[in-house]
Amino acid sequence: MLDRTDSPRPLPADAALRARAASVIPGGLWGHMNAARMPADFPQFFSGAEGCRIRDADGNEYVDFMCAYGPMALGYRDPEVEAAAAAALAKGEVGNGPSPVLVDLAELLVDTIPHADWAMFQKNGTDATTACVTIARAGTGRRKILVARGSYHGAVPWCTPSLAGVTAEDRAHLVEFDYNDVATLRAAAEAAGADFAGLIVSAFRHDARKKQEMPTPEFARAARAVCDAAGAALIIDDVRAGFRLHVGGSWEPYGVRPDLSAWSKAIANGWPLAAVTGNDRFREAATQIFVTGSFWCGAAAMAAALVSIRRYRETDAIPHMAAMGERLRAGIAAQAAAHGVALSQTGPAQMPMVLFDDDEDLAKGFCFVSAALQRGVYLHPWHNMFLSAAHRPEDIDFALEATDAALAEVARRFG
Amino acid sequence: MLDRTDSPRPLPADAALRARAASVIPGGLWGHMNAARMPADFPQFFSGAEGCRIRDADGNEYVDFMCAYGPMALGYRDPEVEAAAAAALAKGEVGNGPSPVLVDLAELLVDTIPHADWAMFQKNGTDATTACVTIARAGTGRRKILVARGSYHGAVPWCTPSLAGVTAEDRAHLVEFDYNDVATLRAAAEAAGADFAGLIVSAFRHDARKKQEMPTPEFARAARAVCDAAGAALIIDDVRAGFRLHVGGSWEPYGVRPDLSAWSKAIANGWPLAAVTGNDRFREAATQIFVTGSFWCGAAAMAAALVSIRRYRETDAIPHMAAMGERLRAGIAAQAAAHGVALSQTGPAQMPMVLFDDDEDLAKGFCFVSAALQRGVYLHPWHNMFLSAAHRPEDIDFALEATDAALAEVARRFG
Repeated sequence: MLDRTDSPRPLPADAALRARAASVIPGGLWGHMNAARMPADFPQFFSGAEGCRIRDADGNEYVDFMCAYGPMALGYRDPEVEAAAAAALAKGEVGNGPSPVLVDLAELLVDTIPHADWAMFQKNGTDATTACVTIARAGTGRRKILVARGSYHGAVPWCTPSLAGVTAEDRAHLVEFDYNDVATLRAAAEAAGADFAGLIVSAFRHDARKKQEMPTPEFARAARAVCDAAGAALIIDDVRAGFRLHVGGSWEPYGVRPDLSAWSKAIANGWPLAAVTGNDRFREAATQIFVTGSFWCGAAAMAAALVSIRRYRETDAIPHMAAMGERLRAGIAAQAAAHGVALSQTGPAQMPMVLFDDDEDLAKGFCFVSAALQRGVYLHPWHNMFLSAAHRPEDIDFALEATDAALAEVARRFG
Repeated sequence: MLDRTDSPRPLPADAALRARAASVIPGGLWGHMNAARMPADFPQFFSGAEGCRIRDADGNEYVDFMCAYGPMALGYRDPEVEAAAAAALAKGEVGNGPSPVLVDLAELLVDTIPHADWAMFQKNGTDATTACVTIARAGTGRRKILVARGSYHGAVPWCTPSLAGVTAEDRAHLVEFDYNDVATLRAAAEAAGADFAGLIVSAFRHDARKKQEMPTPEFARAARAVCDAAGAALIIDDVRAGFRLHVGGSWEPYGVRPDLSAWSKAIANGWPLAAVTGNDRFREAATQIFVTGSFWCGAAAMAAALVSIRRYRETDAIPHMAAMGERLRAGIAAQAAAHGVALSQTGPAQMPMVLFDDDEDLAKGFCFVSAALQRGVYLHPWHNMFLSAAHRPEDIDFALEATDAALAEVARRFG
């Protein structure tokens, strides 16, 4: 972890909260939001959010390019989404069965997502990816699941990036291939042979600390083809990218439709929800597995999803995110050239990754995002970022003032 | 499934919703809230809830003894809980890190639960039980997990009751024993041997369709002893019973403290939240595993939990639930005797199970709950039920009028 000792930026409330958290939460925080993964001057705790802005516990405000790591896609506290959720809450969030909104939402997904004949709902992206794998196995009576090396599909033993507490058996039936590499994909399918149940693949290659890659059309078609040849299920993990690239599913532009898809993150603009959509071939299998959760039928998140998905369908939300991402990307590219800083900008513009050349230890990346943070812009040094429909051109231009200064700082320090 | 053709009770709105659901949701609904598991006249969809009452999609109101299968413990739409959640929502539910309420809640759990030195939060009970097992393995460097035959610990492949889509490897390191049977428990520990990582055990034996059993003191002490002898983790699955028996953990009355506990259901009175609490021995292991979820840091559910747990601690909520359960139990016992109907009432009074003697096919149970339902009382024929702090004596007495008529019906039909 790099500490920017040259520019102390006091966050006394954050520091006090971190000290308290250190004693009652292992490591201060679990998982992807642990600020120990960020430069030391990044805040851990947040006390407010609105539109595309977040406010830390010390009252500093930032234009946010993480969107809560994806869920926020229409703006924090979007009035229409919040009103729908509040109306659901006013009737009663949970009962001994779902609210009618469950049916409305399942119908909307089936109407919106071309491959979907049905939907089921959960709370975590991991719930959805795990259910897809289980349905694929139940439907085929087979065991092997093809996964791309290094892809993230969730945080339970079969897929979590840390091997602590994981047994070899948890991953006994995974067969790896390399994303966008048709030869290794075919080899994996061959290795799985008659036991090939399914292939789970991220909407695009959004591995941390690596240049992002859109799937090649050849790869996407080969994924469908190896599944078809074997009678296996093609599962798209659209948890992270879903509703930011194409409302009907991220591989729609390739003309490749999965049998099963996992959704979460942006599905309800911040309300906790996940979904599995599937085609009729796997409907019966979906009834055979037993998956459930105490809160999976909660109405508020479904009401929020209903509004959110309609907005993704019926407004320019998705192209707007892309346009704002392009504006940011073009600005950074021009600035980097002007400052003589070599960097890559990869991934879809609305889910951008900025990585510096020759920066194995992320020293340049940390310098860049810290300098931007101090100018009121929250960027990430090694994880894909997220644009939203709430980012306006003036927010991007504000961010570009910060990135210009930050790139000057990188140039000054790293030459 | 029994169909009560003798007493048609039209639920046209429910029927219309079910017809729509049948086409867009596999089997009409997944999991424990699927009304196909209930008599045919039970509603699937609910449009409102308040206090201890729920309203189905056709506008029929019921005094509810399922409490959304546990989450509701202070009353649906409890004003204080809802106000706290709303205040959190008004600031912003999610950001790039948690709200300060995370720290308040972790401190409250550590202060409330004697075994707890730390806490982590999730969304599903299954998230919590799975994290406990993973932490036990990470902390011991071993693999074997002891589980009671037939106990429910969640709905992912390692523990779900259906074997569809589950591989043998998902359960390769489970070693079974019988609940409340010290001999089989010791045999399981011996079988696990040097690979004994942990023992996960429900707060009490609350298996579906079976008489419930509180743990015997000998069993609870033996569970602690076999773990201590082996250096394994004792994990209490308090997901279902937590905050209804003892606010400090369900085995506190036995003087037996776990290393790790899983919580969910009632923790936030219906808001989606789960927690793992642990002692310092497993703190480091908890930092080594990677568990996370997009919505695990959401503030509203934590704000709701803060209020809920304070209420469980500081008010008579728990003894009140127990007293209302005793009132119901005593009334049903007297009615059953008067009608000459043989039944058992087992489990803690605030989580009661009513099963009829000689009722393998649940014909009597279905008859009983259907007759009660038609009189405005929602009971369950084969799953433990739940009382809440919102049940008043007059609600119990209203329910007892229904159960009296329902038991008369059972006597009439089954002699």
